Amino acid sequence: MELEKITTLIPFKLENPKTRLSGCLSLQERRELAMCMLSDVLSALNELKLRTVVTVPDRETEMACNLFDGVEIVVDERKLDDSVNSFIQNSSPVAIVMADLPLLNSEILLRFFKTEGDVVISPGRKGGTNLLLVRNPEFRVSYHYGSFMKHIRAAETLGLSISVFDSFYASVDIDEESDLLELLIHGKGKKSHDYLISTGFRVDCSEKDPKAIRRYQMDDRKG
Amino acid sequence: MELEKITTLIPFKLENPKTRLSGCLSLQERRELAMCMLSDVLSALNELKLRTVVTVPDRETEMACNLFDGVEIVVDERKLDDSVNSFIQNSSPVAIVMADLPLLNSEILLRFFKTEGDVVISPGRKGGTNLLLVRNPEFRVSYHYGSFMKHIRAAETLGLSISVFDSFYASVDIDEESDLLELLIHGKGKKSHDYLISTGFRVDCSEKDPKAIRRYQMDDRKG
Repeated sequence: MELEKITTLIPFKLENPKTRLSGCLSLQERRELAMCMLSDVLSALNELKLRTVVTVPDRETEMACNLFDGVEIVVDERKLDDSVNSFIQNSSPVAIVMADLPLLNSEILLRFFKTEGDVVISPGRKGGTNLLLVRNPEFRVSYHYGSFMKHIRAAETLGLSISVFDSFYASVDIDEESDLLELLIHGKGKKSHDYLISTGFRVDCSEKDPKAIRRYQMDDRKG
Repeated sequence: MELEKITTLIPFKLENPKTRLSGCLSLQERRELAMCMLSDVLSALNELKLRTVVTVPDRETEMACNLFDGVEIVVDERKLDDSVNSFIQNSSPVAIVMADLPLLNSEILLRFFKTEGDVVISPGRKGGTNLLLVRNPEFRVSYHYGSFMKHIRAAETLGLSISVFDSFYASVDIDEESDLLELLIHGKGKKSHDYLISTGFRVDCSEKDPKAIRRYQMDDRKG
């Protein structure tokens, strides 16, 4: 079955992760949240028994990731695009799964991996590419600055078939404060959800649009 | 087939619609965009040949909606929740489809209508309920203030089975300026997408995160 041939790649770093959350989470908390989200992503993948590679830029992140079982950790100091493209060239079919998608589950991933197309893209908001499955070794990624549009264009230029994968849960990458609300609402049972709760976050429904609010300040719980 | 028994309900109003877009679209433009989005939603539904009812609060909106074929227009001055609940009580199975979901297509809707459960919810961001299928006449809706959570709780209280429907396209309701970007990126071929383009909007990818920008000011094109 083709599924078993897929290598799943998860780029991950612990050096100052999730900077856009620094207004509401300390550096230490952002690192802990990043680890919890990676753990959630790996749990969703785990049931599918695919080869899973976490690429990390440094030894410190490598050490932290060693606590995960059944995963290859590869230190790769190259830029994100270069690192991913080298995997596509040498190991396709490759699925690139972002490490900040805690709402993923194995059912969504299975549906994603089974979607036909030389290139399958699951969009995030703001033109992001949250999941990407590449079955053709000629394809090259280019993240940021509207990667969804760039990836569609790149596939078209190469004459490759493209599928857009439609998933709300896969579209929620935890990047900004407004994303935390989605994790709080939809993430029950996830490590990263429980971590946010433990840091004092909860959903405030007193206004027409719910908000994620924090009961106590950053790092108060450690005081 | 059960599908044919479903009544689809679309609440719609033209009186000062989409107020959160008033920073970038004039009242007249917001009304035109609202009409285009309703047209997109109706096109997506049209292929499925279900009974489709647009509920409107006033005669003016009724007149404007008369241009759509194959749709019942019902004037209902009651509040949103009361109007929807009366339909659920009398006409279930009822699907409530929001009028500001231009990225819907017939494939998504068919998948949605075929999803099992007494209550099927397709979430929007911020705890919203974008699509709701109710197969039990006892269920009652309560929109706003975190309707997704409230609808889950309401179904649980009644002992009803619940499915959460996972769709990115169905999750994008056009409410705020940041939502326009999603319509510009993913809405090619939709009336509302073309309308936005005609008012001068385009996607700016010069920064890491793309933005929707407007080339000329509100209503300049009419000067």
